[in-house]
Amino acid sequence: LGKPLRDMDKEREALQAWKERVEQELDRVVAFWMEHSHDQEHGGFFTCLGRDGQVYDDLKYVWLQGRQVWMYCRLYRKFERFRSPELLDSAKAGGEFLLRFARVAPPGKKCAFVLTRDGQPIKVQRTIFSECFYTMAMNELWRVTGEARYQNEAVEMMDQIVYWVREDPSGLGRPCLPGAPASESMAVPMMLLNLVDQLGEADEELAGTYAELGDWCAQRILQHVQRDGQAVLENVSEDGGELSGCLGRHQNPGHALEAGWFLLRHAIRKGDPELRARVIDKFLLLPFRSGWDPDHGGLFYFQDADGLCPTQVGMCPGPHGTGLFKAFFPGRWVPSSPGWVIEAAWVSERGTCPFRDPEHGEWFGYLTREGKVALTIKGGPFKGCFHVPRCLAMCEEMLGALLGRLAPAPSPGPGSPAAVPARQAAK
Amino acid sequence: LGKPLRDMDKEREALQAWKERVEQELDRVVAFWMEHSHDQEHGGFFTCLGRDGQVYDDLKYVWLQGRQVWMYCRLYRKFERFRSPELLDSAKAGGEFLLRFARVAPPGKKCAFVLTRDGQPIKVQRTIFSECFYTMAMNELWRVTGEARYQNEAVEMMDQIVYWVREDPSGLGRPCLPGAPASESMAVPMMLLNLVDQLGEADEELAGTYAELGDWCAQRILQHVQRDGQAVLENVSEDGGELSGCLGRHQNPGHALEAGWFLLRHAIRKGDPELRARVIDKFLLLPFRSGWDPDHGGLFYFQDADGLCPTQVGMCPGPHGTGLFKAFFPGRWVPSSPGWVIEAAWVSERGTCPFRDPEHGEWFGYLTREGKVALTIKGGPFKGCFHVPRCLAMCEEMLGALLGRLAPAPSPGPGSPAAVPARQAAK
Repeated sequence: LGKPLRDMDKEREALQAWKERVEQELDRVVAFWMEHSHDQEHGGFFTCLGRDGQVYDDLKYVWLQGRQVWMYCRLYRKFERFRSPELLDSAKAGGEFLLRFARVAPPGKKCAFVLTRDGQPIKVQRTIFSECFYTMAMNELWRVTGEARYQNEAVEMMDQIVYWVREDPSGLGRPCLPGAPASESMAVPMMLLNLVDQLGEADEELAGTYAELGDWCAQRILQHVQRDGQAVLENVSEDGGELSGCLGRHQNPGHALEAGWFLLRHAIRKGDPELRARVIDKFLLLPFRSGWDPDHGGLFYFQDADGLCPTQVGMCPGPHGTGLFKAFFPGRWVPSSPGWVIEAAWVSERGTCPFRDPEHGEWFGYLTREGKVALTIKGGPFKGCFHVPRCLAMCEEMLGALLGRLAPAPSPGPGSPAAVPARQAAK
Repeated sequence: LGKPLRDMDKEREALQAWKERVEQELDRVVAFWMEHSHDQEHGGFFTCLGRDGQVYDDLKYVWLQGRQVWMYCRLYRKFERFRSPELLDSAKAGGEFLLRFARVAPPGKKCAFVLTRDGQPIKVQRTIFSECFYTMAMNELWRVTGEARYQNEAVEMMDQIVYWVREDPSGLGRPCLPGAPASESMAVPMMLLNLVDQLGEADEELAGTYAELGDWCAQRILQHVQRDGQAVLENVSEDGGELSGCLGRHQNPGHALEAGWFLLRHAIRKGDPELRARVIDKFLLLPFRSGWDPDHGGLFYFQDADGLCPTQVGMCPGPHGTGLFKAFFPGRWVPSSPGWVIEAAWVSERGTCPFRDPEHGEWFGYLTREGKVALTIKGGPFKGCFHVPRCLAMCEEMLGALLGRLAPAPSPGPGSPAAVPARQAAK
């Protein structure tokens, strides 16, 4: 055998080993939520779970209800081994819980932020995010069940969200104060672009309906690249300029990476190589470069574009799970080997991923800068069954696609290294 | 000389040395704010100050404007060496800024939470705290200037606050949601009790007016002692029971200590030794015992009464400046020597106070559990010219009072240790 073929064998083996590892991890994460989070009595999910899965509060955060429904459906739809009635039934029970209780004053579409266990509203946010996760859940439920009422809910809620964002935000209930700058949070066009992707999947009609919206979102997200292309800022003025003060200098590298992921998918849909190159440069390489902690590794949760100290009370500047989970995805598109990204995220200098919990499953969400577990909870107001399994599922798909593109493995002779089963090799 | 007298000499020396140290520190802290925080153009104060005093944002948080006015007036009124025209003029300029801009829609009394540099409202909180600090500022301005308009403002705002708390909260703009438990945050009666103290100082008429309110506040604060007297909980139900979930289990030891301070002053005003003993037990000794980090020293910022992990996103469980600053005060009342409290707060195991900044003055507000500086800012949305100087000023007064109660120092013979000037001994 010539040398290039041996190299390809090595690469195949490495990718296969990573795929096995990712598969096992995803299984463990899903098992954690299946075991601990289902509310058999009221439907929906407990998401305030301690390290070992103990329910430490029975609050139901609407973002997390919607995200878990979406995640279960997505796994059911895309992975053979997750096509179980239990997963589907739980997703449907979560969907029914949302249909009955998410809206604060039906038929009005404003959704609560957090509900009691039995669905009474506790708090309402004056933003669009509860409604966005509601939409994702309903669209994905429609895809797995084929029931039109879910899709109707998704499309009607989407129309409402777009109206709030582009026509008239007054229904969100935010007061208009003369000193408040007209600013845009990157989260808004980013979330909307994600919904355009979600609703338009294999649906030419809706993809057409939202095509202009997708372009608008992309253009708005790109406005957040500031300072001669050297920084992605979370908040900019309505007309795309830098805002003064902390608000204007605020950065979240993990968020920039997530926006980059949505933008890349948009560029691929559009067949726009120029946009694709720009996104890789500004939303993948740049945040990895400027957001990476040179001392301890990991991505910073928050940064100030001038290098000043962030001001959030009690916010620890340090690497943040969500950011790091999202770090996986660029492997699909960054031209160099995907290995380094996966390894950077998974393996710390100590040779093990500091976010993983080998004892109880799922991952910790919050580490100190030095990589110590800061909060031991597995779920809380903003972390549920979403970022970690979404990231692992995506990695598994990417690794499968990469393996599929390699030439098939040669039929191994006895004693050849390729004869070792990949699952064993990965251990 | 007999042994007891020698002991008293030693105690006097130690107290005198601490008093000198505290005086110097207070001077440095006040100098920091005088040098960096005055907005000569618009009046009021910059409070977003970096480690070296650099203004990193020109936002004006109303809590901090009110607190700084109060602090300057209090220092002017109580300490000979701070009776300077510059301090008074700055306090007055801050007061005028508040009079002109704090209220969002005059003559309505609701105040903004944060303003632009030139006084335009950016955000309004649906709580009473901006208005409380406004009241404190106005009352204290009246005490130093004698101008009745300040006192009218204070009393009218106080009436409004009491109406919101005891009669009808609808003016605060909070939505009524069926799932939200009818709960009470300890901060509300605690803050009101502080205002009763502030307005009633040397004012028999107002002290009488608010006497019943003071009793009501004390009774409401005491309802936060739960679990057979073993825990002070931040939030309880309207009728004084424990709430379910994280909300109910939430603890803030520094806050409990602060409530204890206000309660003790109330008990002393009333001449109620039974209340005094109860408060020392439940609001001073208990939070120090249960809130103290046995591993690294310092008070935890947050705790869960069941020892579970706090859920605040990005909140690092670790000792918190405000809590520790407040730790100073019990020296006045705890029967044992005040020394240990002051030393516990000031001196870490490394022999130096981890909150102090010997280089630039003022103290850091946020440390990690291990005592490393987490945020280098000296002022931010919740920290300004208030907790640190208030605590130091109180310590200086306490130490002065304790020294005054000791028998006068014997006229020292040459070579006696007492002949060493205290300022030198303190170094």
